[in-house]
Amino acid sequence: MKADSAQLAQPDEALERRAIDTIRTLAMDAVQKANSGHPGTPMAMAPVAYTLWRDFVRYDPDTPDWPNRDRFVLSVGHASMLLYAVLHLALVKEIDPDGKPTGRPAVGLDDIKQFRQLGSKTPGHPEYRMTTGVETTTGPLGQGCGNSVGMAIAERALASRFNRDGFELFDHNIYVLCGDGDMMEGVSSEAASLAGHLALSNLCWIYDSNHISIEGSTELAFTEDVGKRFEGYGWNVIQVDDANDTRAVARAIAAFRDAHDRPTLIVIRSVIGWGSPRAGSEKAHGEPLGEDNVRATKKAYGWPEGAQFLVPDGVAEAFNAAVAGRGRPAREAWEETLARYRESFPAEAREMDLLRRGKLPSDWQATIPTFPPDAVGLASRDSGGKVLNAIAPHVPLLIGGAADLSPSTKTSLTFQGAGSFGKNDHSGRNMHFGVREHAMGSIANGMALSYLRSYTGTFLVFADYMRAPIRLAAIMELPVVFVFTHDSIGVGEDGPTHQPIEHLATLRAIPGLDTIRPGDANEVAAAWKVALSHSHEPTALILSRQAIPTLDRTKYASADGLERGGYILGDAERGDPEIILIGTGSELPMVVAAHEKLSGEGVRSRVVSLPSWYLFEKQDDAYRDRVFPDAVRARLAVEQGGSMGWDRYVGHDGGTITMKTFGASAPLAKLQEKFGFTVDNICAVARDLIEKNK
Amino acid sequence: MKADSAQLAQPDEALERRAIDTIRTLAMDAVQKANSGHPGTPMAMAPVAYTLWRDFVRYDPDTPDWPNRDRFVLSVGHASMLLYAVLHLALVKEIDPDGKPTGRPAVGLDDIKQFRQLGSKTPGHPEYRMTTGVETTTGPLGQGCGNSVGMAIAERALASRFNRDGFELFDHNIYVLCGDGDMMEGVSSEAASLAGHLALSNLCWIYDSNHISIEGSTELAFTEDVGKRFEGYGWNVIQVDDANDTRAVARAIAAFRDAHDRPTLIVIRSVIGWGSPRAGSEKAHGEPLGEDNVRATKKAYGWPEGAQFLVPDGVAEAFNAAVAGRGRPAREAWEETLARYRESFPAEAREMDLLRRGKLPSDWQATIPTFPPDAVGLASRDSGGKVLNAIAPHVPLLIGGAADLSPSTKTSLTFQGAGSFGKNDHSGRNMHFGVREHAMGSIANGMALSYLRSYTGTFLVFADYMRAPIRLAAIMELPVVFVFTHDSIGVGEDGPTHQPIEHLATLRAIPGLDTIRPGDANEVAAAWKVALSHSHEPTALILSRQAIPTLDRTKYASADGLERGGYILGDAERGDPEIILIGTGSELPMVVAAHEKLSGEGVRSRVVSLPSWYLFEKQDDAYRDRVFPDAVRARLAVEQGGSMGWDRYVGHDGGTITMKTFGASAPLAKLQEKFGFTVDNICAVARDLIEKNK
Repeated sequence: MKADSAQLAQPDEALERRAIDTIRTLAMDAVQKANSGHPGTPMAMAPVAYTLWRDFVRYDPDTPDWPNRDRFVLSVGHASMLLYAVLHLALVKEIDPDGKPTGRPAVGLDDIKQFRQLGSKTPGHPEYRMTTGVETTTGPLGQGCGNSVGMAIAERALASRFNRDGFELFDHNIYVLCGDGDMMEGVSSEAASLAGHLALSNLCWIYDSNHISIEGSTELAFTEDVGKRFEGYGWNVIQVDDANDTRAVARAIAAFRDAHDRPTLIVIRSVIGWGSPRAGSEKAHGEPLGEDNVRATKKAYGWPEGAQFLVPDGVAEAFNAAVAGRGRPAREAWEETLARYRESFPAEAREMDLLRRGKLPSDWQATIPTFPPDAVGLASRDSGGKVLNAIAPHVPLLIGGAADLSPSTKTSLTFQGAGSFGKNDHSGRNMHFGVREHAMGSIANGMALSYLRSYTGTFLVFADYMRAPIRLAAIMELPVVFVFTHDSIGVGEDGPTHQPIEHLATLRAIPGLDTIRPGDANEVAAAWKVALSHSHEPTALILSRQAIPTLDRTKYASADGLERGGYILGDAERGDPEIILIGTGSELPMVVAAHEKLSGEGVRSRVVSLPSWYLFEKQDDAYRDRVFPDAVRARLAVEQGGSMGWDRYVGHDGGTITMKTFGASAPLAKLQEKFGFTVDNICAVARDLIEKNK
Repeated sequence: MKADSAQLAQPDEALERRAIDTIRTLAMDAVQKANSGHPGTPMAMAPVAYTLWRDFVRYDPDTPDWPNRDRFVLSVGHASMLLYAVLHLALVKEIDPDGKPTGRPAVGLDDIKQFRQLGSKTPGHPEYRMTTGVETTTGPLGQGCGNSVGMAIAERALASRFNRDGFELFDHNIYVLCGDGDMMEGVSSEAASLAGHLALSNLCWIYDSNHISIEGSTELAFTEDVGKRFEGYGWNVIQVDDANDTRAVARAIAAFRDAHDRPTLIVIRSVIGWGSPRAGSEKAHGEPLGEDNVRATKKAYGWPEGAQFLVPDGVAEAFNAAVAGRGRPAREAWEETLARYRESFPAEAREMDLLRRGKLPSDWQATIPTFPPDAVGLASRDSGGKVLNAIAPHVPLLIGGAADLSPSTKTSLTFQGAGSFGKNDHSGRNMHFGVREHAMGSIANGMALSYLRSYTGTFLVFADYMRAPIRLAAIMELPVVFVFTHDSIGVGEDGPTHQPIEHLATLRAIPGLDTIRPGDANEVAAAWKVALSHSHEPTALILSRQAIPTLDRTKYASADGLERGGYILGDAERGDPEIILIGTGSELPMVVAAHEKLSGEGVRSRVVSLPSWYLFEKQDDAYRDRVFPDAVRARLAVEQGGSMGWDRYVGHDGGTITMKTFGASAPLAKLQEKFGFTVDNICAVARDLIEKNK
């Protein structure tokens, strides 16, 4: 690790200054042309980004998808032009979504001129999958920090999995540029605490301390001693007094590389909007400087005042030469190592090939269990744990854990050798995230960005603590599995603070997130199968605390129907149904029981299991119309959650048995009686609806 | 402040031990009987809670709603039995929801026997409004910590507002009992940083450091130096080595009261489940000890093994005497002070009376502006700022701010004397929460729990960072106003990370939260009026970044219609409408324009403005049927957000123009074209729907 901590270069000072000012002026010009954006931080931190990339980041601009590259995370995503300018000057080459080089620049000058325009590669905040070189989507503050901890964990896990004596396939570092906002957000506090605990010495946060926030000086709201706080977390803390002192910056980063027992925070004092008439003011943060200020700033830099989007000759070439001069040989040596590795460790090398393509081992589904019919059954958190433990031995990079709830969420890997991931054991596959749901989500995203198949676990109600990373997983199309147990008033005695009501709706509302609430153990098995089959979608897997009967699938349709999101589980024996009963999760067997009771009374009912609205909406019209024929308007959905969204399926003429209020602290049976979740009540409401629709 | 920091009492050690063991055994017995709950922390922290209440908390058990009482917040809400036992032993008297004493105990022994049962006053986690003496609903970790900072701010604000020389009406302290989970959660980190910044010396967090988390030892995930971290925040940090050493605990709390320049963290080393066979193990945390262990523990305590729910003679009486002996004279002296105050400061005294009844000054609505028709109009964040600034001078306890976004959210109070709330100026009414959305929400709840009319401000997309406190405001029925601006793809160039899509649905899904998205400046005025009229409901006020035309209300219905949630804004000139067009927020004027265009083409359309689903659903059937007649099934909702929930209004036969995906970084006009939010597209879809429904 950190083996290439070479001598610090003796820079050509004029060239250095020209390059730094190129970054600054590109940012100013792009923001001015877009008439929108954030010039101040790129202007302040250009010397830092320049120094970091020129002297330290191990990166081959021709092969930006090299697995062992250093990662650079711009947690201050609003300073996107800083990253775009660096990628432009480093002459990074584009990789298309299928992993093929296009020969084009990752960020050309024309792209920079299209900053913040529809369809450009230079959106307002950096977007993963949109621009080569962007390692994660940032903007919501603190998320990049959290992601970076996941990337650092992933580096350690990959090294543990693949490295062998003489074959150092993974030994890269993760650099983060963050700001006051990141430092104030709780998610980064949580992530930093865990990073210190895990002694992630491959992680370096560079904190742009500019003493300015949007409302004004940080004196207004943020006067803590950040360095001391991070020492409390167990970090190595280094101060740099002036962002423009590139030698001091370089010494600090070199010191990071020499610290082998803990993560490093470099606190760099900077002046936002450096060199401009707005320097040191919140006015330099989030709006164009204005034409006059742009000219005045260029003048102050000794820059041609009238020039726009100027990249002086030689600047990009020299920068590229410095980056590639270090990164290309490192990457080539790595390829050679991999070739030798392939001879010595063919199975591991094949596994490496799979991970680079985002594929799972071919036999990963073979051991998924089926569950026999069982009138008592088991909680879906329990069947979830069984299925996870059946799959995980065959998917070595499936690594995850819970926010200090694994005995409850049943998300622990319990087979021989699974172990705990810790400071001194990076082979462990059980993550102990601590009571840090927000960081857990953000870290899981970072792990997924570095090849791991990450999963998380907590109670569904605490999805509220980690909404931002779930949303970002969906935006980034990362196949993280977010396991949420204790999914309804089924929580019982813990009461309303712990009983999710609106949470199913709030997850179903996120575009691109597959929210699956399986209705018995075999649907749980199908759900895990679907979740791991996703390559571009995160999954929210919603599981019960309480036991759910396992349905007899010889009598009812196969749980494979889950793959279509919704399916006809049971139907009226003859003739069209008078009513469609819809259930999910722990209410499904209750709905089945109501169906059986109604059938016994001669009522023709259909039972639809609808575990994933997301997958169901992807089906063609014909399939959906078959499940929900337009003619059958008497429909009843039963779910121990809020009603939001159910109208889509039950329409104006149907109804729901759902929660209209928060829950209460009591044993579940009492709550079910109080709130109407009984077979008798389902039958009564169903009969009313049939009557109403006659 | 802290004036009654008296000599420490010389306790009767046998009585002390008996009282502490009473708390412990009540917790054990209640959990055992409920067969559910958390015995370990009450058992460990009984000596601390006992010492704190006996020697320090200024509280009159007969008048538990005395405004200047000390607040005790049990942030470790799962340890609810600790609080119930203390309230029981202190003989605290019940106050009913209307503020009237009932004469009954707040928590009787029968209530304790009903622990975690339906309808009892002793739910699994403490619930505000459910049990007298519960100052806030806790359970979701970190929230009590955040609330406490809001309470400490409120104490300072109330003191600044009401205290006069010789009239110290407010000088109470806020005590919090928190645990490892609280310390790990980001929300408490954010709150602690702000508390240190504001030098809230009236705030004391007592941290139960038991080295145990649910997954096992804190060695698994939490090894930071918490004390050092809090020193970084600017706190006074005191260590106590043994929770059972009540003298050391008392000395630490006395030291808190002697620290006048900063908040205090007391770190107390404890043994979870103390005295039981499971002591020091995670097994003592969240489940009953088991009958045998209960007996063994009682034996270890020297307690009658067979006795259940035993409160030895004299224990409650002595504890009550100690608490009341300090609290009653203090409360009586306070009442005398208030009586004198009423003479000298009659206006302020009347304001105090209002605040105690949760009422606003009678003239508060008088200055709400009306806005003239304006084809260009103004952003609803701008009209929101104007309305807020028109009302706030007349509502002195309306205090709030933003998470470092006030120049964007326009939530600053700008009138003479509004000022910033800071360490040295507690009269300021603008809170600078910093980039700490989660703590902001939690702090705002705490402010509302201590009489302030608090409001918050951030971008709608960052509602994700503060879901938990919004939900808790709804559970607690606190009339906090959560202002969210930049409410759609109207954000434009900042792109998908900053463009809310699902957020409207996720707020509308929360029971008891009034989500209002006003459609022009006059609806904004009506929305603020509704929000402040709420006494038991929080409001999410959803405002635009971009300008919205101000409708001509001589031509269209009055914005007062907002008070019913939805109303017919404009209608077909003659005959029943062929289609109902529904709009909210910035899309409302667009829908009106489509209505005008369609009318010009001879199409009969109705425009419904539907700013608050919450209020609309409260209207009677007749009103709702008048707005949405069953016969008119061609309905089109237009909203620059996700479609979740709209089926309730448009049904199977209607349609929506909504967002099906995340947004993109581009100027708004380009986005509107791309996603179909144009008058032409609305008209085209409307004509299709009419055709389809013929």
